[in-house]
Amino acid sequence: MSAELSDSCLKIATSAKAASRELASLDTTIKDRWLLESADALIEATDEIIAANEQDLAAASGYGLSDASIDRLRLDAGRIEGIATGLREIAALKDPIGEVLEGFTRPGGMRIEKRRVPLGVVFFIYESRPNVTADAAGICVKSGNAVILRGGKEAMHSSRAIVDILGRVAAKVGVPENAVQLVGTTDRAAVGHFLKMHEQIDVTIPRGGEGLIRRVAAEATMPVIKHYDGNCHVYVDASADVDMAVNVIENSKCQRLGVCNACESLLIHEQIMADALPAIAERLASRGIEMRVDKRAAAHVPGGVPATEEDFGTEYLGPTISIAVVDSLEEAADHIARYGSGHTEAIITNDLAAAERFTDLVDSAAVMVNASTRFNDGGMFGLGAEIGISTDKFHARGPCGLRELTSYKYIVRGNGHLRS
Amino acid sequence: MSAELSDSCLKIATSAKAASRELASLDTTIKDRWLLESADALIEATDEIIAANEQDLAAASGYGLSDASIDRLRLDAGRIEGIATGLREIAALKDPIGEVLEGFTRPGGMRIEKRRVPLGVVFFIYESRPNVTADAAGICVKSGNAVILRGGKEAMHSSRAIVDILGRVAAKVGVPENAVQLVGTTDRAAVGHFLKMHEQIDVTIPRGGEGLIRRVAAEATMPVIKHYDGNCHVYVDASADVDMAVNVIENSKCQRLGVCNACESLLIHEQIMADALPAIAERLASRGIEMRVDKRAAAHVPGGVPATEEDFGTEYLGPTISIAVVDSLEEAADHIARYGSGHTEAIITNDLAAAERFTDLVDSAAVMVNASTRFNDGGMFGLGAEIGISTDKFHARGPCGLRELTSYKYIVRGNGHLRS
Repeated sequence: MSAELSDSCLKIATSAKAASRELASLDTTIKDRWLLESADALIEATDEIIAANEQDLAAASGYGLSDASIDRLRLDAGRIEGIATGLREIAALKDPIGEVLEGFTRPGGMRIEKRRVPLGVVFFIYESRPNVTADAAGICVKSGNAVILRGGKEAMHSSRAIVDILGRVAAKVGVPENAVQLVGTTDRAAVGHFLKMHEQIDVTIPRGGEGLIRRVAAEATMPVIKHYDGNCHVYVDASADVDMAVNVIENSKCQRLGVCNACESLLIHEQIMADALPAIAERLASRGIEMRVDKRAAAHVPGGVPATEEDFGTEYLGPTISIAVVDSLEEAADHIARYGSGHTEAIITNDLAAAERFTDLVDSAAVMVNASTRFNDGGMFGLGAEIGISTDKFHARGPCGLRELTSYKYIVRGNGHLRS
Repeated sequence: MSAELSDSCLKIATSAKAASRELASLDTTIKDRWLLESADALIEATDEIIAANEQDLAAASGYGLSDASIDRLRLDAGRIEGIATGLREIAALKDPIGEVLEGFTRPGGMRIEKRRVPLGVVFFIYESRPNVTADAAGICVKSGNAVILRGGKEAMHSSRAIVDILGRVAAKVGVPENAVQLVGTTDRAAVGHFLKMHEQIDVTIPRGGEGLIRRVAAEATMPVIKHYDGNCHVYVDASADVDMAVNVIENSKCQRLGVCNACESLLIHEQIMADALPAIAERLASRGIEMRVDKRAAAHVPGGVPATEEDFGTEYLGPTISIAVVDSLEEAADHIARYGSGHTEAIITNDLAAAERFTDLVDSAAVMVNASTRFNDGGMFGLGAEIGISTDKFHARGPCGLRELTSYKYIVRGNGHLRS
């Protein structure tokens, strides 16, 4: 049984590798035609997709899904239009493959260029949202990569229907048959098999809970682009505009709870504490946020709960925030280096030198000056479709779109050049 | 004993991490002053370094080093001048840190820039050549990284002397004390400890034999930049100039044996086989190269030895080459995909379409047209100092210099911008 599973996984990975060789030099026109015609085909197949989705919904309560999860799983005509729109947006993005990143001529006349190429095969593990199936397929193929999709079992029928439609269009327009493959089995052991196939798979991208990502990072024998949640900070500098501080903190914390770029911790300069903290606390209280405060902050935060050391390292992903008072910008930066996760941090300041110093000192994927932490997002940055937000520094950091799924090669043109 | 070793490794890694935070925003002037004054200081300390080197040389025979290895280990005034010159060349390179990779303004006026930053802490494992100690320290610090150096035990006294001098200059010019640290123990277990410290170490770069690199890649919990040897191919297209083919193959194979970018396998189009193979074989024979040939090639290679399947997958790193005849450029590309290692491949051709097709189809770190495979090298590419040549596609591919030791962060400037 296990040997059979292992064989079927290897067959998927090997055929993906073969497809990736074709994809690497596939003309942009063909990739874009596949995206646009797939968008049309998905809309035409609305009934077929909804029927498949109903099978998933019927099984959902058996999986113990929450109402919110069931809602995310549900497809209707409007959501299928949304999926189609997503594919059309990817078609409109510039093809990254073949871009010359730099080029120069060496003494002696040898010409060198650094040309962008696909990574090869992407193994993508993701949660139970059928729209992600089409999105990920589109991003990978547009960037010249083959993809092995391992979606949550809860959306299996919906994903299968979508991938089948993408495959029919692929056959028609000349995209390799195995460019997009869905792992058919829900056996969790399959993931373990794929994670050992570094000969075939160039990168694994796990999306989901921290436990899944840690397991994948520990087991994978190929590179992994990790996507952890963030313990994001807003630091209110001595020079901050109080109204701006109140609004940015409210937006960073409350615009959406439970997301990776929501603010989890507030740091405030002691010089502005008495002016700003009461207004911040009032606003956060009005939004139902519990405040865990250090000793100095406590005096200015009615109803604040004493914070423990653990609070400052916690990503609440919910209606709680920790608050600490600092004596300087440098102390804020040290606190962030100690407790933060390098995701997103913001400073609120009117002092240019402080803004420069903070953006220098803080080593996070995104450092905001007078803007909400919620902006760290590929869509908000205008980078186009994204397959995730990397919390790594290696290879890709922050939003991962088409370019983050690429590598490069050096092309060297000579005239019989020999090394002496 | 093991707990003590583990503690001392953690102390090194933790202090490197602290140093890396300072280095990240250290002014270029200070880094360059450190490089230039270190160059002077090494020359001034020639006697001290040679005395240390003599201790290594005295122990060398006890380690069973070959004469060639002992020669590489030996330092004299000229070689110390060479090390100093290397540091001066790094000082002359542009500082990659702070480079704005791109920048733009979003609708609504939020400004976004993608700024190059250091990776953080590099753990570098390398062979017993004392010049590499100074080179690696220079490359890492110039790119804003702290480095933990784990050199071969055979060069320990020489490396210690060099690192001590770099440290004295660091204290003088304001480079953090722990920017460059040499692992003092020769206990092999230390490497295992460091490879688990992904909280402190951002990347490991192992240089040495394939066994070492495989061990490091398997054990490391942080990213690894791998540097394997290459099974490099030269493909002689139907349209090739025969003289050029003979010269490029000789240079690719013989200019230096046993290096990663030397040619190990020759592929030749059947249409040019009868014209070109005899001349190629004569030249290679005159250089003492043994030829392992497939059936069709055999008729044109006097003294050729029948090749086995295994030959085509072998990196001889010595005076042997495999030779196969192909019916088309596509067959050559398929052969390379099957047997190659993605390091360096070359085509010899006068046909523009063939050159374009080959550079499209072949997925190697460097693809040469009418040039020797031996050019795949940071120095030959004019990229400046390098710490290795990556055979990975992820993060860095090909020569790894200053820029390959960096990441980036997004800096976002708003005016109280909120996400709606």
